[in-house]
Amino acid sequence: MYIAMNRFNIVPGRETDFEKLWQERETHLEQVPGFLDFHLVRGEKQDTSTLYASHSTWASKADFLTWTKSEAFRQAHKDAGKNSDLYIGHPVFEGFDVII
Amino acid sequence: MYIAMNRFNIVPGRETDFEKLWQERETHLEQVPGFLDFHLVRGEKQDTSTLYASHSTWASKADFLTWTKSEAFRQAHKDAGKNSDLYIGHPVFEGFDVII
Repeated sequence: MYIAMNRFNIVPGRETDFEKLWQERETHLEQVPGFLDFHLVRGEKQDTSTLYASHSTWASKADFLTWTKSEAFRQAHKDAGKNSDLYIGHPVFEGFDVII
Repeated sequence: MYIAMNRFNIVPGRETDFEKLWQERETHLEQVPGFLDFHLVRGEKQDTSTLYASHSTWASKADFLTWTKSEAFRQAHKDAGKNSDLYIGHPVFEGFDVII
């Protein structure tokens, strides 16, 4: 099993706008081989930004990597450049192999 | 729902020892109210350390916090000071509220 997290630092006061983007987003992940589940999670609120992460679980790292090279991935990320005023810096990816 | 992650930086070459500690650990989490699941996950291997995280999911943040104040938590962490040669620095906690 594999957990893929992408960390986003959001401008204070824009948290609701960011959450709304994800609520309205069509990812079509359900149809992707090896996809298990998806969550948007909110971490610590700091003075200068609020941490969020996309959190998806996959049967294997290979399934996740195959998805990142697919047309479905390209479609799901085609609007990634929009709403750049919500973000502080670029998202930071972290992938985790599930050991236990 | 709430995700609690504790990040550990492990000395290169000691990864197997660290994983073995967790495989042998008795957490008794199954009996804790609100506990949903637990994983040990391995992130990026860097030159100077390998990232791991404990990853537990809870019905609510309140359930997690109640556990951290319980006798069960104290018992599960009584050996936390041992094997300090495995670690680089202290573990770093991150908690996430599940939004979607």
